[in-house]
Amino acid sequence: MSRAEQLDAQFMQRALDLAQRAWGLTHPNPMVGSVIVEQGHIVSEGWHRLAGQAHAEIEALHNLGRSPQPEASLYVTLEPCSTHGQTGACTQAIIKSGIRRVVVGAVDPNPAHAGKGLDKLRAAGITVIEGVLAQSCRDLNLIFNHWIVAQRPLMAAKMALTLDGKFAAASGHSQWVTGPDARADVMRWRRYFPAIAVSAATVLADNPSLTYRHADAPTWCPIRFVFDRQLRSVNASAPAQLYSDAYAARTIVLCAENAPTAQKKQLERAGVSIWPLPVAADGHLDFAAFQQRCISAAICGVYIETGPGLATALLENHQLDYCFVYQAPKFMSDASAAGIGSKRQTESMQQAFTLSQVKHQQLGEDSLLRGKL
Amino acid sequence: MSRAEQLDAQFMQRALDLAQRAWGLTHPNPMVGSVIVEQGHIVSEGWHRLAGQAHAEIEALHNLGRSPQPEASLYVTLEPCSTHGQTGACTQAIIKSGIRRVVVGAVDPNPAHAGKGLDKLRAAGITVIEGVLAQSCRDLNLIFNHWIVAQRPLMAAKMALTLDGKFAAASGHSQWVTGPDARADVMRWRRYFPAIAVSAATVLADNPSLTYRHADAPTWCPIRFVFDRQLRSVNASAPAQLYSDAYAARTIVLCAENAPTAQKKQLERAGVSIWPLPVAADGHLDFAAFQQRCISAAICGVYIETGPGLATALLENHQLDYCFVYQAPKFMSDASAAGIGSKRQTESMQQAFTLSQVKHQQLGEDSLLRGKL
Repeated sequence: MSRAEQLDAQFMQRALDLAQRAWGLTHPNPMVGSVIVEQGHIVSEGWHRLAGQAHAEIEALHNLGRSPQPEASLYVTLEPCSTHGQTGACTQAIIKSGIRRVVVGAVDPNPAHAGKGLDKLRAAGITVIEGVLAQSCRDLNLIFNHWIVAQRPLMAAKMALTLDGKFAAASGHSQWVTGPDARADVMRWRRYFPAIAVSAATVLADNPSLTYRHADAPTWCPIRFVFDRQLRSVNASAPAQLYSDAYAARTIVLCAENAPTAQKKQLERAGVSIWPLPVAADGHLDFAAFQQRCISAAICGVYIETGPGLATALLENHQLDYCFVYQAPKFMSDASAAGIGSKRQTESMQQAFTLSQVKHQQLGEDSLLRGKL
Repeated sequence: MSRAEQLDAQFMQRALDLAQRAWGLTHPNPMVGSVIVEQGHIVSEGWHRLAGQAHAEIEALHNLGRSPQPEASLYVTLEPCSTHGQTGACTQAIIKSGIRRVVVGAVDPNPAHAGKGLDKLRAAGITVIEGVLAQSCRDLNLIFNHWIVAQRPLMAAKMALTLDGKFAAASGHSQWVTGPDARADVMRWRRYFPAIAVSAATVLADNPSLTYRHADAPTWCPIRFVFDRQLRSVNASAPAQLYSDAYAARTIVLCAENAPTAQKKQLERAGVSIWPLPVAADGHLDFAAFQQRCISAAICGVYIETGPGLATALLENHQLDYCFVYQAPKFMSDASAAGIGSKRQTESMQQAFTLSQVKHQQLGEDSLLRGKL
């Protein structure tokens, strides 16, 4: 890597760090960061803070408070938009500013737009460098990239497993598979997604709140989905946190159309929403119908905290787009403990469900492996 | 890290690289590397090449071909020995050389000797810095460290698993769980161990040669063990490679004392050795008796390429000291495919077998996790 390339990577890294300040706040927009550099120094910074607010490069230009110097460079983690959205085309604003060099991380994930913004800049005589830290810039917007291309929410499963693929001891005891570093990382990804889903079994076993709790930030509550076909997690005398805490109005229960009326009424009284769904041939709620309702509600990503049953159903029904697999360096070594998979009698390794664009990360003694399905 | 510490780490890294040139060649001795530095430059290098040959620091002193300068430093990855072995105490040679500063990686793993070599150097007025890249220096000698402390061979299992802990499809088809980078890494670790073991099932399914094959080195054959209680892998009309190739005399079959005589005779005719072992209560060959025979034969480490049966038996009988777990980013999602574990009905996560001193490594899309049990 040349000295100039090193500098480009260093400034792009700063733009990436800025982008991440809006972690989980920009849906359905991407996180984007931008810096302006003159004479080897950053003179202005910007990032996209919230959907509806200024794009990162506009913020950086605005924060400069004057015209950029003739040799100024603008760095931005994502290709500037070339179509008029809520805030006007960024390519126009860059051209108007007089900037003569633009360094871009990821191209627009939308194949219909990819590269068009760069073409406009080049047509205006601007030098454009693309692909700097491209992989990291693209990886930052897992949800946006999927939503814009597939026009469906990113359905992501999280699981915490032993090396031999077990979620728990045979008794169901699972506290804890992984250590504190891995559990803190789960919290971070929870904050990334606009919605979290769990099964009725998890509500009954763990009674989670699914809120984001961190010393440096106010508590935040995502949309909380519960997969509960017959509403067995609804208990009048000891209601679960999801149905009784201060954020009960952020809980949505997914159940069969014929779920018991008494439980439905109880949820409604508590301010909890209900989405009745068809039941598929295999006895599970119809995941495709669930996705359609998410699209209608503009929910662009769901983080599904799975146990063995839900993980198997989602995987084998091809309903997962992404997986977060936390692994502890231990063997349960118990054929009676629950793992993934129905008895589908595979003939070949080629029948495995394979992840791509895999990222590995060490978290204390545990590790996170994540990738696209 | 100060500039001086950075330099120390850099020279120790070179010593580590030198040590590894004898990868798998020094048993039962450790791999050790050494450099001598004058005025910020390496002026001599040495490493321990083979058991019985010069220790690394002696080689470095010898290769210098003159007395070191007054400000010279000697770097060595392992604490110099202070007792007279085959080659004389290294501490004496260092003191005699006039070296005034010694930088050491790992201390002697033997608690009876640990630090004594450093004390002798200090008593002679030498400045001793210890613990530079200590973890890497210690990790280099997994087998030696165990052999010297436990006085037993390091029993290490290798397994290649999917994320859900499967060795193969339900049919037994397993080519391949992991990709080429992971398979090349297995070859590297095979070369590290003086002996490799497989089950009869593996001989029958894969007919492996278990030799080390690499474009840059002559083929090398370890001692090759086969766990085969009733000698079912012995077939007169189509003998396995292990029993018929040019290295058949390096194969040792572990079987029950009452194994069929015809098969025993056939192995003997082919020059294959037989170690009859008692059979334990659970029906497996007695692993403790196997270890005793390894001790008698001065075999300090065994790399056991396990399938589900052997892995379960070794793990649940507490016969494993170390694990190499290769993982592919895929789910078999098949409850009918073989994994690890008997139906032992665990009550708690605390009943898991946990690895410590865990190392993670990415190998293409796959990963290696290794650690002590």
